[in-house]
Amino acid sequence: MNDTTTPGTTINAPAGTPFLEVIRDFDATPAQLFRVSTDPELVTQWLGPRDLDVELLEYDVRPGGRYRYIHRDESGEYAFRGVFHSVEQDRMVIQTFEWEGAPGEVSLDKWTYTEVDGKVRLHMQSVFGSVETRDAMVEYGMESGIRDSMDRLAELLVKEG
Amino acid sequence: MNDTTTPGTTINAPAGTPFLEVIRDFDATPAQLFRVSTDPELVTQWLGPRDLDVELLEYDVRPGGRYRYIHRDESGEYAFRGVFHSVEQDRMVIQTFEWEGAPGEVSLDKWTYTEVDGKVRLHMQSVFGSVETRDAMVEYGMESGIRDSMDRLAELLVKEG
Repeated sequence: MNDTTTPGTTINAPAGTPFLEVIRDFDATPAQLFRVSTDPELVTQWLGPRDLDVELLEYDVRPGGRYRYIHRDESGEYAFRGVFHSVEQDRMVIQTFEWEGAPGEVSLDKWTYTEVDGKVRLHMQSVFGSVETRDAMVEYGMESGIRDSMDRLAELLVKEG
Repeated sequence: MNDTTTPGTTINAPAGTPFLEVIRDFDATPAQLFRVSTDPELVTQWLGPRDLDVELLEYDVRPGGRYRYIHRDESGEYAFRGVFHSVEQDRMVIQTFEWEGAPGEVSLDKWTYTEVDGKVRLHMQSVFGSVETRDAMVEYGMESGIRDSMDRLAELLVKEG
């Protein structure tokens, strides 16, 4: 196991599997978290590492809708894109994910929003096309980006909740 | 390993993984196979087991396009749906796949079309959200449906090629 936990966010990336799991509880309702996390107007305020600018080119949250965004820092640009398979209000989002730097290496992300002990638990499960691709993304620093995203989402909930 | 091979189609479903792989060579060019396998007018002639009727409700082959179809036999209806993530002419299709009988259990399919020794090799890799879901689909008889589909596609290529 390759598990690590910081205050708040749990990330599991079991060795030898193509899975990545993220769990985070927020002081909010499923409806609040769903709204804040899927609102195209708010995405640039929480998605990705704190030290990267993000430009949102498309974010059409409906089955068949597409998204695309670009992270930028002094070393370059990192573009990501995908399509939404399922969007169930306050409950679940299933979407594809591709870093354009590795074209054709696509993963599938399932986000669920569940009330647990008066909080809302965000559970994200990613499955990659191979164990190697999952390992490469983890080595590339995906985990710190996820932790930043979850912390920023918690801050945004306080502000917008 | 849970591998089986019939004349023509190879299906690999390695034990303990969420992967399913299908490989089939056809006497055709990548362009011919791509056209026949993605043409909405032809889908009902090859997709799925021979003994099931298929009704195509939607089949919009472009990034962000959706598809939905229903298989019917005397015991009932089986509906499937998904969205296309990538569509690269004569080369690759990446799409999601969901049996509506198990809502939220979505897999990701990557189809590539490659010329090999004057034939075209269709390679399909599916990755499921869990090993259990992959196993359930295999036990449910997915493999015979895939074999029928590949054989019917070969027949259709002779007719339409």
